[in-house]
Amino acid sequence: MVNDAKLIIDNALKSAMPGNAVKKALSGMDLQCNELVLIAAGKAAWEMANAAYAELGTAVKRGVVVTKYDHSKGAIGNLDIYEAGHPVPDENSYKGTAAALEAVKGADKVLFLLSGGGSALFEKPLVPATEMEAVTKALLACGADIVEINTIRKRLSAVKGGRFANYCAPAHVYTVVLSDIIGDPLDMIASGPAYPDTSTCEEALEIIGRYGIEVSAEAGKLLETETPKELTNVTTFVTGSVRQLCKSASETAKELGYEPVFLTACMSCEAREAGRFLGAVAKDHAHDGKKLAYICGGETVVHLTGTGKGGRNQEIALAAAEEIRGLKNVCVFSVGSDGTDGPTDAAGGIVTGATADALKMDIKKVLQDNDAYNALKSVDALIMTGPTGTNVNDLTVLLING
Amino acid sequence: MVNDAKLIIDNALKSAMPGNAVKKALSGMDLQCNELVLIAAGKAAWEMANAAYAELGTAVKRGVVVTKYDHSKGAIGNLDIYEAGHPVPDENSYKGTAAALEAVKGADKVLFLLSGGGSALFEKPLVPATEMEAVTKALLACGADIVEINTIRKRLSAVKGGRFANYCAPAHVYTVVLSDIIGDPLDMIASGPAYPDTSTCEEALEIIGRYGIEVSAEAGKLLETETPKELTNVTTFVTGSVRQLCKSASETAKELGYEPVFLTACMSCEAREAGRFLGAVAKDHAHDGKKLAYICGGETVVHLTGTGKGGRNQEIALAAAEEIRGLKNVCVFSVGSDGTDGPTDAAGGIVTGATADALKMDIKKVLQDNDAYNALKSVDALIMTGPTGTNVNDLTVLLING
Repeated sequence: MVNDAKLIIDNALKSAMPGNAVKKALSGMDLQCNELVLIAAGKAAWEMANAAYAELGTAVKRGVVVTKYDHSKGAIGNLDIYEAGHPVPDENSYKGTAAALEAVKGADKVLFLLSGGGSALFEKPLVPATEMEAVTKALLACGADIVEINTIRKRLSAVKGGRFANYCAPAHVYTVVLSDIIGDPLDMIASGPAYPDTSTCEEALEIIGRYGIEVSAEAGKLLETETPKELTNVTTFVTGSVRQLCKSASETAKELGYEPVFLTACMSCEAREAGRFLGAVAKDHAHDGKKLAYICGGETVVHLTGTGKGGRNQEIALAAAEEIRGLKNVCVFSVGSDGTDGPTDAAGGIVTGATADALKMDIKKVLQDNDAYNALKSVDALIMTGPTGTNVNDLTVLLING
Repeated sequence: MVNDAKLIIDNALKSAMPGNAVKKALSGMDLQCNELVLIAAGKAAWEMANAAYAELGTAVKRGVVVTKYDHSKGAIGNLDIYEAGHPVPDENSYKGTAAALEAVKGADKVLFLLSGGGSALFEKPLVPATEMEAVTKALLACGADIVEINTIRKRLSAVKGGRFANYCAPAHVYTVVLSDIIGDPLDMIASGPAYPDTSTCEEALEIIGRYGIEVSAEAGKLLETETPKELTNVTTFVTGSVRQLCKSASETAKELGYEPVFLTACMSCEAREAGRFLGAVAKDHAHDGKKLAYICGGETVVHLTGTGKGGRNQEIALAAAEEIRGLKNVCVFSVGSDGTDGPTDAAGGIVTGATADALKMDIKKVLQDNDAYNALKSVDALIMTGPTGTNVNDLTVLLING
């Protein structure tokens, strides 16, 4: 059963690699045209562009890649590659974005590859960069949330909130989004350069008023300028998200003879309680005489109450271990797709009905100390993958083997 | 959808009423014999005996009912009814139990109806009652858990830990258990008078030693006397448990056109996190285009962090409300089968995708204050049943209407 788990994890991680995700998305697209332009922005921009170029080759007439410093792995055909500042945009972010805006001029079709970090890496401010930065800082200081901050920033930007897609028109924009936010909110990922904006000027002015943020006359005018509410020249493919992890896990489980039961891709509750919940599911299905795989994705939370070492995936596994104690045909594992769970070198944890007894410790107390890492390590129940090269949240699976 | 929920709750509660539960169990039993004796013990003993007598009538040659004070509702045929002390046994507990032991002499078959509270109500101590009480108190004071306490008490009792069934032999004992403990641990419910005991003398002595409990020479000898590890004259029917609630909910949901997905009957995690988990499930299945009913039973916990009014079922519903905000085809409800959720007059809560917006309050803060009752009350989202007459834990359901 642990081998089944390992195969499920391997396949799921592979399917969520930026390259594979792009390849899969491309297979559903008609990019035939005279002037195909490729634009990639975000922390996974290089991998996404590289995979796309490998598929499309010289069909790509020109293109620009903007990624984080040290994230380029070399030249890709005729594409111009920029490395730039993240999480705070810098001169190179603006240069790369300007190059992208130049490149899409005259395009028939634009292949737009977007990943996390795009907010900083893909930016052309309509106010001096210093004011953009000052407004952001002031909003953060007031406790404004990310939706409020983006409502303001989108209006001070030439490319955010759907404006990049507008700029590309009449060219059709095929967006491939590698989602790193639970629920795939497309107007939030990289502030949605090619997605209709749902926020309004009214909201923007209300936010500025409520927090008492001072802005220049120029910025004030921009806040009154509406963002695109409809985009007819955009087709969006969300890929490589936590949904993809879950889908792959379901497929592999099915191949291994398990009946997959997909529960959720947006699990966001307290990690250990999710583990307990799944443990309770195990207890009531361990004797069904079926091979079952309950599949969850998401990003749970951990509230620190101790000073131990661990991560949310390790806490899910450890809490489940207590619930499934003694069940001979049950395995629970949880793994962070980036390979790093909390401040540890483990990607997550994997437990069976034998784990709790092997541990010989008070699991509740270990969780109270947030010390899942050392507990799981002592019984060889950590999942170690090393950095994976993708980051699409976590996969949690309960396997019941007949 | 709310009407569907109400029907599911009504039917589930009806199915878990002691009378209905017994009737159902009897239908699977062959009680034909010359000397059928009925013994009922526990808080629901009167209802169980009354339902059994209504079915069996004069086929019952004699019988004894031991229940809590004020729990008898009148004479039942030729049965002797005792009201006695609970949670601390008293003289009447011993009298009723002695009468039961007398009644089963010469029986061919014994119908043994057991419900929660039976530990105190059905007891014949083998040491003076005062020593039994002193040992129990000493164990409680040391922080011994219920399993440890029962390991000791079973050995100091003539009827617990399978000894009542042994006493009845060669008569066959048909036990109907109305379970009030999650997971239906049959050696724990009423300390298992007719169920093989899993605890050992070795464990008993270790417990006494570890906590440094002083016992009389007589008690010390009893602790070295083993309880029955195998009983060949017992058939046990568990009924009216939280599983029954879940089963009934599945059946009604199916009749209403929902595809039932039974998740667990032993949910025991933090109440609000269970609500969040189910809310996350809702988010990922609300657009499946199917009618789905996710069904859970159990007894969640609430850790008090505030001074408000509420209960675990209300917290489940309120926490789910936030997650399902805006979903038009989703309903989550949670209800305590006894009709009393926490220290309130509500049985639980029922929420839809419209509840969170209607509330116009910070749900996280309300939960922090443990004030789910007042929040749900303000939007008419409490479930009010009044005392139901049964107590088989809680039912939690997520409905998705196509």
